[in-house]
Amino acid sequence: MSVTDDLLRNNEAYAAAFDKGDLPLPPAKKVAVVACMDARLDVHGLLGLQLGDAHVIRNAGGVVTDDEIRSLAISQRLLGTEEIVLIHHTDCGMLTFTDDSFRGDIQGDTGIKPPWSPESFTDLDADVRSSIGRIKASPFIPKRDAVRGFVYDVHTGRLREVTPLA
Amino acid sequence: MSVTDDLLRNNEAYAAAFDKGDLPLPPAKKVAVVACMDARLDVHGLLGLQLGDAHVIRNAGGVVTDDEIRSLAISQRLLGTEEIVLIHHTDCGMLTFTDDSFRGDIQGDTGIKPPWSPESFTDLDADVRSSIGRIKASPFIPKRDAVRGFVYDVHTGRLREVTPLA
Repeated sequence: MSVTDDLLRNNEAYAAAFDKGDLPLPPAKKVAVVACMDARLDVHGLLGLQLGDAHVIRNAGGVVTDDEIRSLAISQRLLGTEEIVLIHHTDCGMLTFTDDSFRGDIQGDTGIKPPWSPESFTDLDADVRSSIGRIKASPFIPKRDAVRGFVYDVHTGRLREVTPLA
Repeated sequence: MSVTDDLLRNNEAYAAAFDKGDLPLPPAKKVAVVACMDARLDVHGLLGLQLGDAHVIRNAGGVVTDDEIRSLAISQRLLGTEEIVLIHHTDCGMLTFTDDSFRGDIQGDTGIKPPWSPESFTDLDADVRSSIGRIKASPFIPKRDAVRGFVYDVHTGRLREVTPLA
């Protein structure tokens, strides 16, 4: 029995008790969240989001790459979101390696160097600011006024806002 | 007062009650989930995941692009995950437009055609199979045996597995 099979059993119990089948497609709170994929972040829990409230976009690091621009463009242009919340976090795996080492290890194991940047970073606040900057610089995101970035503390459960550089 | 400010107040309550501050970085269940960003999907809820169990990767559609390959490569190579669960869902926004129309609309509004595909689709099961295929075809994902895809029904809360074509 795989973990996936266990999760499917959990889903049977979820569906049996499910009573939120009539929610509309556009997010009720008109907000999109971009957060790290880290296992210790429950985005709904830590922001107090209810089902139907917000788009939740997640990847390794919570960084903004072309795919997050794609998702945010769809979120805003087609589904009416207006605010963006970025969440990085303490003790992040992205702080534990360098892009060069990761790409070199993959090339060593497979003979092929990946054509993408792994997007590792050494400074949480600087990477949050970089991700905000990538959104602000994108012509494909219509609403760029309400973009705020945070660092989530995995030990305390608390968000700390990253202030823009003066 | 913005929605973001409301969510920060929610986080204060979350942090005040938080008691899971000692979880390890690698996901306990060694699984990574790739799901759509849709507001009606609470990935932790619908799979019965606990904090610390799984990486959760999300984007518009739950499709696999280079950024999901990046995240999955980091998840498996550095943090020990072994299974992958893909989740698309019924009533998805990605079924409501075409790549040509979306790129054309952006070009009309901004003068600039985005260099990426919006990744719209017309057939949920076919797109789940396509995303599985992109993972299976990637040399950068070491463990490609346990990759399964599902369609989540937003009206019933239930997952349906997409079977591979014979």
